[in-house]
Amino acid sequence: MLFDLDGTLVDSVYQHVAAWHEALSGCGITLSMWRIHRKIGMSGGLFVRGLMRELGRELDPEVAAELRRRHAAAYAARFHEVTPLPGARELLETLTRLGAPWAIATSGGGEVAARTVALLDVPSHVPVVTRDDVAHAKPDPDLFLRAAERLDVAIEHSIVVGDSVWDLLAARRAGALGVGLLSGGYGSDELQSGGAYRVYEDPADLGRHLDEVGIREPDG
Amino acid sequence: MLFDLDGTLVDSVYQHVAAWHEALSGCGITLSMWRIHRKIGMSGGLFVRGLMRELGRELDPEVAAELRRRHAAAYAARFHEVTPLPGARELLETLTRLGAPWAIATSGGGEVAARTVALLDVPSHVPVVTRDDVAHAKPDPDLFLRAAERLDVAIEHSIVVGDSVWDLLAARRAGALGVGLLSGGYGSDELQSGGAYRVYEDPADLGRHLDEVGIREPDG
Repeated sequence: MLFDLDGTLVDSVYQHVAAWHEALSGCGITLSMWRIHRKIGMSGGLFVRGLMRELGRELDPEVAAELRRRHAAAYAARFHEVTPLPGARELLETLTRLGAPWAIATSGGGEVAARTVALLDVPSHVPVVTRDDVAHAKPDPDLFLRAAERLDVAIEHSIVVGDSVWDLLAARRAGALGVGLLSGGYGSDELQSGGAYRVYEDPADLGRHLDEVGIREPDG
Repeated sequence: MLFDLDGTLVDSVYQHVAAWHEALSGCGITLSMWRIHRKIGMSGGLFVRGLMRELGRELDPEVAAELRRRHAAAYAARFHEVTPLPGARELLETLTRLGAPWAIATSGGGEVAARTVALLDVPSHVPVVTRDDVAHAKPDPDLFLRAAERLDVAIEHSIVVGDSVWDLLAARRAGALGVGLLSGGYGSDELQSGGAYRVYEDPADLGRHLDEVGIREPDG
């Protein structure tokens, strides 16, 4: 099982939205919160490019770099608000107990990812693949492909769990089964049309339905 | 045309989500951001009751009052971030120019509503109906019924424009046609299953499609 991080295991999407909004305002750019929300979870480069298209502007590389710096600072200022999503730790513990291999694959950079993963008590042997480890982040398939490789599991036998359409598009491109969670604030139709095989509310809800995605107790 | 305010004419839903999250945390209550988001726009009393149900707790009236006080303070601290949604002022100006009567009907309290309406340059003759003017806020129909009454227009000939399912449920209960906007961050399926006759992105998008909801140029 290959997990996205923000909005899937930790409740951080709305802080990212607010941080991008603050970064954009700081650069004199007004963009609606819901449009920012719908782009959270994709690679930072594509994200900035997508925002610029919505605004009908050309992408100035210096402004793009400034936006990313401002976002990082604004998100760091909100990080104390970020908590694990209900059932996230329990779900990961259950998978470990059942011997079902799992990993984390995030479009976020290594440093922020490390701080976030620290909220979850992840055992040191669990692979955590970040933006820094691959050439292209979501919706490219690289992050999930690398995570499956590090688990030594075929991607075709992997389940990708994510809260955004970018996770689900990346899952399809990788050849994995995608499961959607509503905990990032997307609508279930968006996740289903992104290719989600099933949609659950949050990690707690997925944990109650592991049978539906084919994860068995050892004697199952 | 009867407009909701937050998420429909101004970009304030995410600030309300953050303010409720801060208020809840301040009272020692952890609730996921997306669950708060899905309740924004309903009456404050129902909102707090709904949150308590999600948490499986009983509603203590003192805690409920404390939550509402904390939310008001946390929202006031974020109010400087709130801006009109793209196309909101232009849409309202167009309706005024076309002689199509319009009003604002919000589940928010009078004082905050007044500060918010001030962002929009609303002519003084336009009715603004707030929580303080009716016995029950959305999803009860009272706010929209009162707004139509103040315009002296039959509710059956009114169009309710809102970003949340609570607006659309209230519109149906009132007997008006409901139009949904994505600018509050709900998914379009949620708005459609709430009863939206049409769904647009934001006020700018609605303004480009007024013909689809039957609003004509004077010679149309």
